[in-house]
Amino acid sequence: MTKRRPEGDGSSGATDLPREFSFIRRHFRQLAAREALDLTDDAAVFAPPPGREIVIAADAMVENVHFLPGDPPSTIGRKLLRANLSDMAAMAAIPFAWLLTVALPAGFEEAWFAEFCTGLAEDQRLFGVGLLGGDTTSTTGPLALSLTILGHCAPGQALLRSGAAEGDSLWVTGTLGDGALGLRALRGEIADPTGWLTERYHLPRPRLGMALAGVTSAAIDISDGLVQDAGHLARESGLALRIEAARLPLSDAARAAGDTAVDAALCGGDDYELLLAVPPEKEAELQREAERAGVAVTRIGMFSSGSGVTVYGPDNRPMVLQNPGWSHIGNA
Amino acid sequence: MTKRRPEGDGSSGATDLPREFSFIRRHFRQLAAREALDLTDDAAVFAPPPGREIVIAADAMVENVHFLPGDPPSTIGRKLLRANLSDMAAMAAIPFAWLLTVALPAGFEEAWFAEFCTGLAEDQRLFGVGLLGGDTTSTTGPLALSLTILGHCAPGQALLRSGAAEGDSLWVTGTLGDGALGLRALRGEIADPTGWLTERYHLPRPRLGMALAGVTSAAIDISDGLVQDAGHLARESGLALRIEAARLPLSDAARAAGDTAVDAALCGGDDYELLLAVPPEKEAELQREAERAGVAVTRIGMFSSGSGVTVYGPDNRPMVLQNPGWSHIGNA
Repeated sequence: MTKRRPEGDGSSGATDLPREFSFIRRHFRQLAAREALDLTDDAAVFAPPPGREIVIAADAMVENVHFLPGDPPSTIGRKLLRANLSDMAAMAAIPFAWLLTVALPAGFEEAWFAEFCTGLAEDQRLFGVGLLGGDTTSTTGPLALSLTILGHCAPGQALLRSGAAEGDSLWVTGTLGDGALGLRALRGEIADPTGWLTERYHLPRPRLGMALAGVTSAAIDISDGLVQDAGHLARESGLALRIEAARLPLSDAARAAGDTAVDAALCGGDDYELLLAVPPEKEAELQREAERAGVAVTRIGMFSSGSGVTVYGPDNRPMVLQNPGWSHIGNA
Repeated sequence: MTKRRPEGDGSSGATDLPREFSFIRRHFRQLAAREALDLTDDAAVFAPPPGREIVIAADAMVENVHFLPGDPPSTIGRKLLRANLSDMAAMAAIPFAWLLTVALPAGFEEAWFAEFCTGLAEDQRLFGVGLLGGDTTSTTGPLALSLTILGHCAPGQALLRSGAAEGDSLWVTGTLGDGALGLRALRGEIADPTGWLTERYHLPRPRLGMALAGVTSAAIDISDGLVQDAGHLARESGLALRIEAARLPLSDAARAAGDTAVDAALCGGDDYELLLAVPPEKEAELQREAERAGVAVTRIGMFSSGSGVTVYGPDNRPMVLQNPGWSHIGNA
């Protein structure tokens, strides 16, 4: 099953770069961090920042599941990178490096890949990270990407999901539902005259840059929908969580989409905003820090003893949600 | 395109584990390292070993490209883990942790996945590594796995491909060609009465455990075939390399396969043996260290000034190789 391809005359040609490696060099070398050894070795070597802990996470994205075949090539890699950067933001870590593996379907065009890497190069500059390594292989299926992100934080300062306490309030960054509505706009189900929704679907905005350690008691980023991810905070902290639907921050573009916006804000995926548990005495500090970083924050709920997430509607009665979140497993 | 699945009544159900997460917990939690925070958080946090550098690499494997649909589930994850461990061996690093992302095709059975994880658990014990995190998603294509491995080494002691000098000899661990012949046996093209070849295709043996720093001047592991990977050593070191076909170490099972064995040893993939450049005055030390670690080593060639890899046949004439190595890119 392995594809064997002639790569030239082996009696001397093996010193020329075989196709796979010249391909990787051509596109990925521009992204390589100093520690990546120009991507010519088996692995990268780096000295961890002295006195810091390493924070590490990995996420995969697959065509037709997490992005659409017609999405701009320059956004596809960036969406995965930003989803991983959002995990770093949720842990209050400072990202510095990443690795990428790519399973390429037959028939992709090199121009596509060049644009893919140009987008990633732009995000490397924006977010101050460098590529450490990876792998490129073929697949008979759709394009599949896997990305590992590395960050660092002061010892013991990484934010966890489990730190919320009774009486903490629940805050969220930015606006909710835009990504899920952007997907609907790309499918032609709703209008997006300004392009805001589509842009948020393609390029989420990881909420890095706020100093959250010592301010928030627990955090998670919203990738699978507010209710589902809020459920992780509640469960890991051993608490109940009440969310007020009327308080959900919606963009003008989302409001223009009508009733579907609240559903998207509660249960849509692809927000990549932060959900933060904040003790009462830290609320003012959070607001000052968010303002300094230029990030909007909104209080949308409260933790109490018990278990479960309940969303209260404008009538102050619990809402019944049919689809509280995304699952990326299609079976089992 | 994202699959939305009902996960129960959202008014309280969000605190129950959604399907994706209970699935991951059930299978992967047994593998989680202490630093993985029970795989319940956005990322893992670990303190790097004091005074050590971190060595990191990522590799992907795709069904039908790197393994066969009928391969035992218990070997598929291990093959990828061992390929990554082999990268650590090639850098003279000590592996300690890994992350895994899985893109699952529709219709896989949970029993398959349980066996997949049982195999990985066995290798975790064998090689002393712990799972730090990962991601599980669905795909409409074949099973695709991506693994990131982390190791550590003393500062400046990681072995590179570029360190070979004129006059260094080329050594290889173990035997060559078994993995490629195992693939042929699984396809029914050759016999494998003892199962040795098939076993080597399914479960390569990463050559960890030798103290190579200060003994070898350059190293690489053979994943795409001896000639192709030797070409990387030659090119990165700026040297020519002469390999003697008659010296290639072949297993009894490979010899029994006849003439095809030398071709498999030169150009087959899936060996995961180490290629080592060794200065003349270090050869005895390499042999002592290999004996201590229980690893066979064989001298098969020599570096000289110039460029290119040339394989000399038993008649002392250069061999012409049609397919010097594997490429995992099927296009471009």
